[in-house]
Amino acid sequence: MSEVKVIIWGLGAMGGGIAKLLAEKEGIKITGAIAGRAEKSGKDLGEVLNLNRNLNVAVSADYEKTIKETEADIVLLATDSFLKNVFPQIKLIVESGKNCITIAEEMAYPHTVDEKLASEIDELAKENKVSVLGTGINPGFVLDTLIITLTGAQRSVKKIKAARINDLSPFGTTVMKTQGVGTTPEEFKKGIADGSIVGHIGFKQSITMIADSIGIEIDEVIETREPIISNTYRETPYIKVEPGMVAGCRHIGYGMKNGEAVITLEHPQQIYPSVENIDTGDYIWLEGDPDLNLSIKPETPGGIGTIATAVNMIPHVINSAPGLVTMKDLPIPRALMGDVAKLIKAGR
Amino acid sequence: MSEVKVIIWGLGAMGGGIAKLLAEKEGIKITGAIAGRAEKSGKDLGEVLNLNRNLNVAVSADYEKTIKETEADIVLLATDSFLKNVFPQIKLIVESGKNCITIAEEMAYPHTVDEKLASEIDELAKENKVSVLGTGINPGFVLDTLIITLTGAQRSVKKIKAARINDLSPFGTTVMKTQGVGTTPEEFKKGIADGSIVGHIGFKQSITMIADSIGIEIDEVIETREPIISNTYRETPYIKVEPGMVAGCRHIGYGMKNGEAVITLEHPQQIYPSVENIDTGDYIWLEGDPDLNLSIKPETPGGIGTIATAVNMIPHVINSAPGLVTMKDLPIPRALMGDVAKLIKAGR
Repeated sequence: MSEVKVIIWGLGAMGGGIAKLLAEKEGIKITGAIAGRAEKSGKDLGEVLNLNRNLNVAVSADYEKTIKETEADIVLLATDSFLKNVFPQIKLIVESGKNCITIAEEMAYPHTVDEKLASEIDELAKENKVSVLGTGINPGFVLDTLIITLTGAQRSVKKIKAARINDLSPFGTTVMKTQGVGTTPEEFKKGIADGSIVGHIGFKQSITMIADSIGIEIDEVIETREPIISNTYRETPYIKVEPGMVAGCRHIGYGMKNGEAVITLEHPQQIYPSVENIDTGDYIWLEGDPDLNLSIKPETPGGIGTIATAVNMIPHVINSAPGLVTMKDLPIPRALMGDVAKLIKAGR
Repeated sequence: MSEVKVIIWGLGAMGGGIAKLLAEKEGIKITGAIAGRAEKSGKDLGEVLNLNRNLNVAVSADYEKTIKETEADIVLLATDSFLKNVFPQIKLIVESGKNCITIAEEMAYPHTVDEKLASEIDELAKENKVSVLGTGINPGFVLDTLIITLTGAQRSVKKIKAARINDLSPFGTTVMKTQGVGTTPEEFKKGIADGSIVGHIGFKQSITMIADSIGIEIDEVIETREPIISNTYRETPYIKVEPGMVAGCRHIGYGMKNGEAVITLEHPQQIYPSVENIDTGDYIWLEGDPDLNLSIKPETPGGIGTIATAVNMIPHVINSAPGLVTMKDLPIPRALMGDVAKLIKAGR
């Protein structure tokens, strides 16, 4: 293969970042770009991405025409977090004979959300001899792939605990709202109840992927979401948090067996944790033989990490046997610093 | 498959540890055991391993008969560090139609040692429809697999530095000699020159595997071995080190490009580094976009880690397409806590 042809679907913060990275990689040619917003339609992708050059790809809002009529080996899909919303998009991609990588969080391990839809994606992919992967920094890397990989050095695993402690202050109003930043404790409670405050999407995926990978049984995944009450005044360009108000959401997922948590994943997300002496970082504590304690400080950046992971998995997905695949099924991830086209095996 | 049948070849510290772990795993049946030492021959493997039970496997020193006449899916080979020494053993294993995992360090990426022998293993494996993998904690995991995996979250990689800082004090006389512990600086220099002090085996493998995986070019791998001169008195059951004498070997491997080190792997190995306030640990510093700093403290244990890694890769190797494979080619590693036989795909 002389070049890998890629369509980018979704040009928001993540999709736009993916498109920029695709444009930098050797051996990758962007052949199509789909925007959700009509006002981007007709412009050159380079202009939409604020690059100082044209990419000779006209952005289109007509996703059906673009997917069906554009030649491409793979589509990178960055439109939504939820399986039911990306399912028709993935169906269109797969039925047009194209592989797919999506950063939809629920797609990291979709049978935990909807067994029937996940099976349908798998069957459609096999029929059309293509592969579909959900990935990203989390779910997809820090709280699942990295944990599973580290257990590879253990004779046995007893309990798994991990935490991803990050700083939400660079994010905009949407994230502030979905994490409950700037609410009162009462408003936070109400937001959790009505679903407007969601916390992290992906605990069920990550916990089930870990359990399935290493062969431990869990009865259920439980999630708790608590407000992180600030003791200090914190302010970003988008939000002000007075002492006593909510600086973020302490979201914890538990993989339970016989009433005991065998897998505990914590993802407390708040603005400026440093003001209360909390270090950001990714932490993995494996209890077993041996115990292993891993940390990445500061944490793997969320946005950059999601963009990187999605792009870096392109060769593995194209080379994979057809079907719905997950990070646990594919070779170890890696950065792409050479000619990406040369990594594609013949015969697919 | 109802059980995975395994032969263990080599019953030293590592091979014995592998055998013990195999005996604990569900879905694995040890069908043969080969000892280098004739005095172990004829005894039950359980007795040789100092278990309180028989394993109903007679240890044999007749490796040819055991490999040829024992039914097994895979052989775990723990006899030697060097490609040229394990080559005839791997040939025998593969020609008898059995898969192979070896902890021979040079086999982690054997074409860096001898292109011809590595190609021959690959061809023999393909002819006999089996797979061969070299792995272990290092090379095989800490200073290659884990580094490659972490670059998966990077948009680009500029430089890689990593260090594995461990404590040699639990080891015996052989390790003391090959690392130069307890020598004078002059004796150390002489030992390096005459090859009796070797330091770590695996830098060439790990550095080349990283470079090939992420697609960066290196011109050559350079290695330096310096004595770690002790400022304090240190003593183990096997060795005494006076101030001014050598406590270990600071071995560094550099992957060079245009005269610059783009990959630097350090593995200073000494007894009791803590007496001079050196923390043991595995450290990875990735320079790029983004920078990432990972640490595992204390370090992943060497012996346990090698035993675990070798056993944990059994399903991946049996499921792999035939040929010589390396850690970069296989799915992400993981602990085996369930029925191992259930992980073997049909059709191999």
